[in-house]
Amino acid sequence: MAGERRSSGTVAHRLIEDHMVEGRMAAGEEIGLRIDQTLTQDATGTLVMQELDALGPRRVRTELSVQYVDHNLLQADERNAEDHAFLRSAARRYGIWYSKPGNGVSHPTHMQRFGVPGKSLAGSDSHTCAAGSLGMLAIGVGGLEVALAMAGEPLYVRMPQIWGIRLTGALPEWVSAKDVILELLRRHGVKGAVGRILEYHGPGLDRLTAMDRHVIANMGAELGATTSVFPADDAVRGFLRAEGREHDFREIAAEPDARYDLDEDIDLSGLQPLIARPTSPGNVVAVREVAGEPIGQAVIGSSANPGLRDFAVAAAMVRGRQTSPAVSFDVNPTSREILQDLTRSGATFDLLAAGARVHQAGCLGCIGMGQAPAAGRNSLRTFPRNFPGRSGTEEDAVWLCSPETAAASALTGTITDPRDWAAEQHVPHPELDLPERATVNTAMLEPPLPAAEAVHVPLERGPNISALPELDPLPDTIDVPVLLTAGDDVSTDEISPAGAKALPYRSNIPKLSEFTLTRLDTDFPRRAAELRESGGHVIVAGENWGQGSSREHAAITLRHLGLRAVIAKSYARIHWQNLANFGVLPLEFDDPADHARIRPGDRLRLDGLHEALAPEGPSTLTVHNTTRDEDYGLHHRLSDRQRRAVLAGGVIPALARSV
Amino acid sequence: MAGERRSSGTVAHRLIEDHMVEGRMAAGEEIGLRIDQTLTQDATGTLVMQELDALGPRRVRTELSVQYVDHNLLQADERNAEDHAFLRSAARRYGIWYSKPGNGVSHPTHMQRFGVPGKSLAGSDSHTCAAGSLGMLAIGVGGLEVALAMAGEPLYVRMPQIWGIRLTGALPEWVSAKDVILELLRRHGVKGAVGRILEYHGPGLDRLTAMDRHVIANMGAELGATTSVFPADDAVRGFLRAEGREHDFREIAAEPDARYDLDEDIDLSGLQPLIARPTSPGNVVAVREVAGEPIGQAVIGSSANPGLRDFAVAAAMVRGRQTSPAVSFDVNPTSREILQDLTRSGATFDLLAAGARVHQAGCLGCIGMGQAPAAGRNSLRTFPRNFPGRSGTEEDAVWLCSPETAAASALTGTITDPRDWAAEQHVPHPELDLPERATVNTAMLEPPLPAAEAVHVPLERGPNISALPELDPLPDTIDVPVLLTAGDDVSTDEISPAGAKALPYRSNIPKLSEFTLTRLDTDFPRRAAELRESGGHVIVAGENWGQGSSREHAAITLRHLGLRAVIAKSYARIHWQNLANFGVLPLEFDDPADHARIRPGDRLRLDGLHEALAPEGPSTLTVHNTTRDEDYGLHHRLSDRQRRAVLAGGVIPALARSV
Repeated sequence: MAGERRSSGTVAHRLIEDHMVEGRMAAGEEIGLRIDQTLTQDATGTLVMQELDALGPRRVRTELSVQYVDHNLLQADERNAEDHAFLRSAARRYGIWYSKPGNGVSHPTHMQRFGVPGKSLAGSDSHTCAAGSLGMLAIGVGGLEVALAMAGEPLYVRMPQIWGIRLTGALPEWVSAKDVILELLRRHGVKGAVGRILEYHGPGLDRLTAMDRHVIANMGAELGATTSVFPADDAVRGFLRAEGREHDFREIAAEPDARYDLDEDIDLSGLQPLIARPTSPGNVVAVREVAGEPIGQAVIGSSANPGLRDFAVAAAMVRGRQTSPAVSFDVNPTSREILQDLTRSGATFDLLAAGARVHQAGCLGCIGMGQAPAAGRNSLRTFPRNFPGRSGTEEDAVWLCSPETAAASALTGTITDPRDWAAEQHVPHPELDLPERATVNTAMLEPPLPAAEAVHVPLERGPNISALPELDPLPDTIDVPVLLTAGDDVSTDEISPAGAKALPYRSNIPKLSEFTLTRLDTDFPRRAAELRESGGHVIVAGENWGQGSSREHAAITLRHLGLRAVIAKSYARIHWQNLANFGVLPLEFDDPADHARIRPGDRLRLDGLHEALAPEGPSTLTVHNTTRDEDYGLHHRLSDRQRRAVLAGGVIPALARSV
Repeated sequence: MAGERRSSGTVAHRLIEDHMVEGRMAAGEEIGLRIDQTLTQDATGTLVMQELDALGPRRVRTELSVQYVDHNLLQADERNAEDHAFLRSAARRYGIWYSKPGNGVSHPTHMQRFGVPGKSLAGSDSHTCAAGSLGMLAIGVGGLEVALAMAGEPLYVRMPQIWGIRLTGALPEWVSAKDVILELLRRHGVKGAVGRILEYHGPGLDRLTAMDRHVIANMGAELGATTSVFPADDAVRGFLRAEGREHDFREIAAEPDARYDLDEDIDLSGLQPLIARPTSPGNVVAVREVAGEPIGQAVIGSSANPGLRDFAVAAAMVRGRQTSPAVSFDVNPTSREILQDLTRSGATFDLLAAGARVHQAGCLGCIGMGQAPAAGRNSLRTFPRNFPGRSGTEEDAVWLCSPETAAASALTGTITDPRDWAAEQHVPHPELDLPERATVNTAMLEPPLPAAEAVHVPLERGPNISALPELDPLPDTIDVPVLLTAGDDVSTDEISPAGAKALPYRSNIPKLSEFTLTRLDTDFPRRAAELRESGGHVIVAGENWGQGSSREHAAITLRHLGLRAVIAKSYARIHWQNLANFGVLPLEFDDPADHARIRPGDRLRLDGLHEALAPEGPSTLTVHNTTRDEDYGLHHRLSDRQRRAVLAGGVIPALARSV
């Protein structure tokens, strides 16, 4: 599938061209993009706002920036409310919209209220790519990059390959958008789109609504894609019209002779209900293959199935029926506006009557904030991720599927293909009567204050909001032990867990560090802290190190615990960038087989780092394994800009130095 | 108000007469009551089910027993779901109804589905007394007493005085049932009804619905009452008719010449909106006295304001308006059926549109499971309790008020008398159009299994369900230090906290013990554990020790940490009984002034305990303060039944011994 063919004329090209301020459009080269909009959420935003404060602008320089509060709504103690107060004060101070707790999940809310075809969006959340559904260039990145974008700096990414996904046919009954992206995950796995933009085109688009496309674009993150893009066509126009924003529509289409770097075809008519088994979004099988397994929980919601339609179809299925007594049927509305529409249409009533626990609008169980299942009991969720422990339960068994599959399974108490349930129950496929105009209610969205007023707003830093850590420059030589040798596909959820225990400390790096990598090694933080004073440690990793969430905490807490370098077979895009942003050297094996030669506790010596990171310097170096007296060839892929940052100890000290 | 007048002919007398199986109806004497129904919730129920298991019946011997899951719905990790699975298995094994998470708060749900005038109800929740609104004899007690009642044993209580509260007039606009019970708390404080039943009568009853009476009966617990009773009259008949259960109605009225031990009058027409200041339900003032204070949160819900009307009035007030941007406006539906009716009527939509965070049905913030406010920021709640820290925030500022006051304050962002808001906004008092027939939906209520099937159901004990602690007999001599000297009105929330940190350990006594009394002394558990092997410790307390929640964990964890005796000025009823149930000797000062003579660390010696606790033995003894060489006279009020239990180390070892 690799190939040297130069793509051109795609929607992705047009979006990039419109925003490129540095570099050239050759796959793999670093480009700088002007950012029109930013999005932050509370779990990453408390750091972003501190970074923005450190960067020093009086006001954001984007066209629009929004701070959402959607991740941690549990409020188990005062820290949570403190975070909210801090974020609101920062939003008021810096000219940022503030979306109150309960208003909704960032991605669908942003799409409904703020998304504009043709604009660029940087978000400190890996599912920011969902806005590609509107024809936006929307990229999930680390928080510091969002802070830089808010301060008016370009966003730097490697120019991706453009992967054209041609859709034909139409989805059969009981098969929906979630099954499209699960099909791509079934074919290509969680590394399938690393370094690529997924661009959807073809006649199959005609019957996919903008919210269907959101579902597909959202979980492009699970394939490792830089982002996903759709054209801005009539479906997008219709969506914006329903949201009262048709004036924001602008058509964006690929040129007739557009060429992609890679091509793929999906015949929608041939798809069937799919499900990802525990514990990876890449473990996709047909629902029928696993039908009959008993379940304890089914959850509908999250940014991976956020639309009115996703809840309405479930409501129609359970209407007048009862969910299984052994199942907790949880419904997580994704935005307050959608919940209002669901309530007005009677769908909320139907869900409640069938036994649903209807929750406030937010991410909730998707980020492990509540809804943890019993250990070992199957939980079916319409969420994007099922990394081990992300649910809050160590020995969890989380499956990812469509709302149709989740609802059918909630009714039967076992994993059930909705087609089989419908056939057995003689249920016709529901005809949904969705409103032409969506509810628009911006009352929980506070607009930016006028500049004259904003400058007088103080930041409300509660006692749990710790200062950013001090970062020292990279030494020329590192001679430290290997503290961990990891396998492939370790996610940032495993590096820095979310969930009800850790998430309240997202503003407190020293405390949050105590959770670092404990899913892989409970003793990691203690041993790392011991080594910190004597030069720190390195980590050796397999492929796709740091997949998943964009949380820069995964890089910062590792750095706080003394990590100086990672040597991996390969990296996930956002985490690789986050490591560089916080002064950790991300190295790669020349020969991936060398990974197996290194054991935990081996002492590694890296010399001549300053030369290897000099501008235009070599990108290669050799590491000496003192314990085994072996050498391994390494390289890095850092741009000159990133080299300066790593040498200085991170982007913030590098900027401070350049002043 | 004290007096020797013998009451007679009251509703309370009739209910007690109908259920008395031991003793005689003289105030202060122990009586045994036949229990028709029991109620347990999850935070107390996991112990109750283990106690029931230890007591050995094959099936409950009550007419009806119900296990609710309403307290801990956060599911921050797998322990929560494990507790639910354990409770469901116990319900299935022992012939108990099981109310699933999300079905609702025990008290309103029990009232709607199971409450029957004239029946007795024992519940392991202090607000069980709310069922007095239907003319039931409903008593909140420790879990072990509920387990005994389920096993067919009588419930023992001290015959209370009957306090007649004569209601006249009618509530003015914007004043509601909550203000009636706040008025009683304003007059008499949190010890005002200790040893008494509050019996409401008089012409003012005519315009109080059964749910209004629930509000009033519920918070009788806050005055320390044994219970509250109302007659079963046309209002009760109307309530049962609306719930589809008119056949359960039975009129219960006081005799025309009924006499009460004490009398009180409340002219409803003269009441105004009231509010309890932090941090006691007894700190009641007029809302106007504190109007204008900024708030950060307003919450509607809990068993103290559970009715459809309580939410509907708030919805009508906020309809078409917006709550303040600085306020989190949380709505906690109390039962799924009420939420269905709210949703059908459009009230849910109105609340959402005005900015409410509408949550699943349950106790939620009322028991500190989420919704913790920011430290020091005022939170207005329609809940029954505002003991310090109960919200989950150490330095909290929680106020208790009516839904009208909470809604008006959510709109303005400051504490607001709803009459003043209405006058300023020219808002007429809402005419609520409540449905004549309530939604009845029992789908989340699993009925008991048939006996033949139930005996084969195994108890599902997850790893967090610890065994009941082993309890050793009381020695004849105690010679131990005083580990704590406490003041008045210490609540069981302070002895054994609820909230998101501790509540997940309600099934795990050793782990839960680590939270014991930490609100008063963070080092208490460590020091107590150190002393445990050398004979334990005693606690010296002021008045009303152990007020509030019925949780027997407050007694069990203290016992687990080596407590052998408490010496107090006086006790709250349920906790006093719980201490005896778990083998802790509850002693009282002959002269309350001696309390001030004892200091933490003083060594106390109690001799001849076995004689002081012998059947018909003296109820008095002397404690020698070795440190100060002083003696203080003490007494206890234990019945012969309780003496046997304390001597044996608790009720369970006493029963084991009697087999």
